[in-house]
Order: sequence, then structure tokens, then C-alpha cells
Amino acid sequence: MANIKLVVAYDGTDFHGFARQNGLRTVQGTLEAVVQRLVGHPIEIYGSGRTDAGVHARAQVVNWEQDVGPPAERFTYVLRRCLPGDIIALDATVVDDAFHAQYSALGKTYRYRVDTRRVPDIFGYRFAEHTPYALDVSRMEEAARALLGRHDFTSFCATSSQSQTKERTVYEIDIAPSGGYLDFFITGSGFLQHMVRIMVGTLLEVGRGRIAPGAVEHILYERDRKLAGPTAAARGLSLWNVYYDETDLKLAISNRMTYHED
Amino acid sequence: MANIKLVVAYDGTDFHGFARQNGLRTVQGTLEAVVQRLVGHPIEIYGSGRTDAGVHARAQVVNWEQDVGPPAERFTYVLRRCLPGDIIALDATVVDDAFHAQYSALGKTYRYRVDTRRVPDIFGYRFAEHTPYALDVSRMEEAARALLGRHDFTSFCATSSQSQTKERTVYEIDIAPSGGYLDFFITGSGFLQHMVRIMVGTLLEVGRGRIAPGAVEHILYERDRKLAGPTAAARGLSLWNVYYDETDLKLAISNRMTYHED
Repeated sequence: MANIKLVVAYDGTDFHGFARQNGLRTVQGTLEAVVQRLVGHPIEIYGSGRTDAGVHARAQVVNWEQDVGPPAERFTYVLRRCLPGDIIALDATVVDDAFHAQYSALGKTYRYRVDTRRVPDIFGYRFAEHTPYALDVSRMEEAARALLGRHDFTSFCATSSQSQTKERTVYEIDIAPSGGYLDFFITGSGFLQHMVRIMVGTLLEVGRGRIAPGAVEHILYERDRKLAGPTAAARGLSLWNVYYDETDLKLAISNRMTYHED
Repeated sequence: MANIKLVVAYDGTDFHGFARQNGLRTVQGTLEAVVQRLVGHPIEIYGSGRTDAGVHARAQVVNWEQDVGPPAERFTYVLRRCLPGDIIALDATVVDDAFHAQYSALGKTYRYRVDTRRVPDIFGYRFAEHTPYALDVSRMEEAARALLGRHDFTSFCATSSQSQTKERTVYEIDIAPSGGYLDFFITGSGFLQHMVRIMVGTLLEVGRGRIAPGAVEHILYERDRKLAGPTAAARGLSLWNVYYDETDLKLAISNRMTYHED
């Protein structure tokens, strides 16, 4: 028995999200079909978390258990050849039996990309939401500071969420201009359903002057989804990184707008 | 009667090319349907040229004649709202009756993008061909010099081409690294079917050592498609610019590897 950890990137455009669904093309379903064929027996893929339909991943992490298969180093290459073009196998390794892509994760970074050009960039169409209105970055940074730290994020969570506790820790929010884009890099202990998209949707309302930066603390406190901004479009969101090592996580959040527990 | 010129960008992934085809989603068909609905009578869209299925455009130019419609300035905005997300109306203007998107064009630039990373960039998947092997840029530049100028490009043209003359002028080939990509910007008087893709496919063979740079002159001379390299994948190609003004064209080809007629 070998526990295999695989890092994959995907273009979410043509998937009905990560999680397996009967009759629909999903990332989990596609990976399971390919891996099962390669290892010759049924396997179950565990992801670090689900991503919604249309959401991308620069580095999603999954794992599965298999009877002795090909050496993991060669496995990356074999997987890369067998997967469709919109899923890329980045790195497969044999890991300790205790490793679980979801339960072992210490934190994650998501990137939300906004196209701020007056007319959108055609090459970024699938990976960004177009927000042609003026955005005040310093207002958004002020509002983002209120989201840092450990909070009950009920106001920033889909009402359909099944999560038992709505408490999460946001370690860092970095708002970075990049060409005609504005990128929100958000790092946290974990995220509720739609949490990043509602945080960004709210920050965009702040940036264009419809919500005051000071209102965010109140929105958090009220635990009422209706008070936060709209859910930003799925296609702007990419799962950027998943951390399994305390040092990796600390190095990732070495930026200016960071929450320190001590 | 008003002659309208429209510059559009499109992501070619989900189109069966530019040219109208019954029952298939094409750029021309999509534009005609939207414009007809807006102007209230049948129109025919003329493009600067066809692009193949899967080929993109940063700036394709089309024109059509319409009875008096909305002022062209507002028309750009209206079109932008009515078109699907993978076609972007960049600029609509009323032009002289004599203007024709194809026959008035003096030249064009195409970009061919190659992803040279060992593992491809997921965000560039739809817009680049992945060529993970080592490429010698100076060898490709040497080979490209043989393609500059006025030639019979039969060897670099799809055998199915209906063009009466295979003579075209290539003004410039600029090979430019950009991040993990290598971009080929090719400017010419006009291009035969698959011409840019076969030129790039041949240059890539030169770059990886399978064709000698000096062989390109011979390949041109023989007028035999079989001697040139393979047709590079459609998705790496984007129509970058179309020139209708002598000065615009001259300014565009101000780079190092340029053919001068005088």
C-alpha cells in the first residue's frame, strides 16, 4: 500500500467543480478515472478541499492510496501524459500513511483576479472578473484589515454551507496590481463555501465607494450574509497554494498586511 | 447608408473559426446575429481575413454596411453589452464607403505563443503550444531571415489553399521571450492558409535541431509543402493587428529583423 500525494493545476472553465458528480465532468472524477486505469484497481481521491464550478487551481493537492504502483517520480510524467490538457500533473510523491490532503492542511492561499482595464483583456477572460469602475486600493486595504485574524465568518459564507463551525483564521490579504489586473492573495487556515468570493465581492464594493471600510467590522459582527457584498464571479478565483508545513505557511505570509497570533 | 468598421478581440477556443458555417458557432455568425438585431435589418460582415478554428484575435477588423443606426461611438458600448464574453468589441467607427476590412488592409501582424516551461502554465493553456524541449533562438532567427521579403510561399501553405497566387511579403519576424513564453510576432502583407503556423512549426524544428537554418531557403525554393515543418497548433496563434495606414505599418515594423523593399 502506498499513499500518493499529487499537486495538480487546472483550468476550471470546463469542469463542474472539483467534487465528483454523476454524469458531469469534474476534476475529482477525471483524476479518479485516469489513476484507476493506471493502477489497475479502484481508488478514491481526497482533495485539500472542493473548488466551485469555474474555479481554477494553480496548485491543488490531492492524495489516494494504491497497491504498489509505478515509482512516484515516473508517475508524475505518466499522469501528465494521460490527463486532458486542462489538468496538469505537477508533482507526485509517495508520502507517509498519515498524510491526508484535507485534514493535514495547515492553510491555503487563494488568488482572486480582477481585470481593471476599461475594456477587458481577451487573454484573461477566463481567469478574471472584469470590474471597469475605479477602485480605491487604500480603502480596500483598510477594510481588509478588519477581516484579518480569527473570526466567525458567517456573514462571508454561502447560506447553504454545511460547515459546523464558521470560525476561520485569515492570516493575510495582499492586494497587488499586476499589469491591467488587480490580484487579491488571501491566505487563511481554511475557507468556508464562497468565503473568498464574498470577501472579494465586499472589498470591491468598498473599493468603489458603496460600502465604508469601517463597516466591515460590523458586517462580521452581525453574522448576516445579507450585509456583505455580492459573491464575486467564480472564474476570477484560483486555488494558489496549500500548506502542509508550518515553515512554508510562515514564509508565505511574510507580507505587510498579516495577522500574527502571538 | 453607413459603413461601420469594428475592431474585435476574441478567444477562439469555443468558435469553429471566423467564417460563417451553418449550424456551427463562428465569430462571423455571432457578430452578424448581434448586429442584425441591433440595426434591425440583414447585414453581411466582412472580415480582414478568416482565422481557423481555435485561433484567437487581439484585434481582428470587420466592416458592414447599415442603414442609419446609432452613432458609432455609442455603438461600441452597445455592442460590448450584447456580445458574449469571448468576443469583445474594442472600437466601432463610421468609415468612408470605400473601406473594406479585407481589400483595404495593407498588412497584418500575428503572434504565435509557445510555452517553453518544462511543465506548462495552466493559465496559458488555451493560448500557447507547449514545447518543453530546448529551443536555440539564434538558430531560429537565422532561419527566419530567409523567410523575410517577397517569396512564393507554396511550401508554407496548406495544400488545400484556394489562393490564386502564393506570393506574399513577410516584413518582419520578431522572436521575443516573455516570462516562460516565447512569442513569434510575424508581420506581412498578407498570409496564406496555415502560413504562420507552418512557418512557426518549421522554425521550431530549426530551434530544436531537426532542420538546419540554411535549409529554409531551399524549402522556399522547392515550393513543396512536404519539406517544411508541421503546422503548429491553432491555439497558440492570435491575429495581433491589421494595418490600413502606411505609417501604422511602418511604425509596427521598426524592429531588428525587418525586410525593407527599397
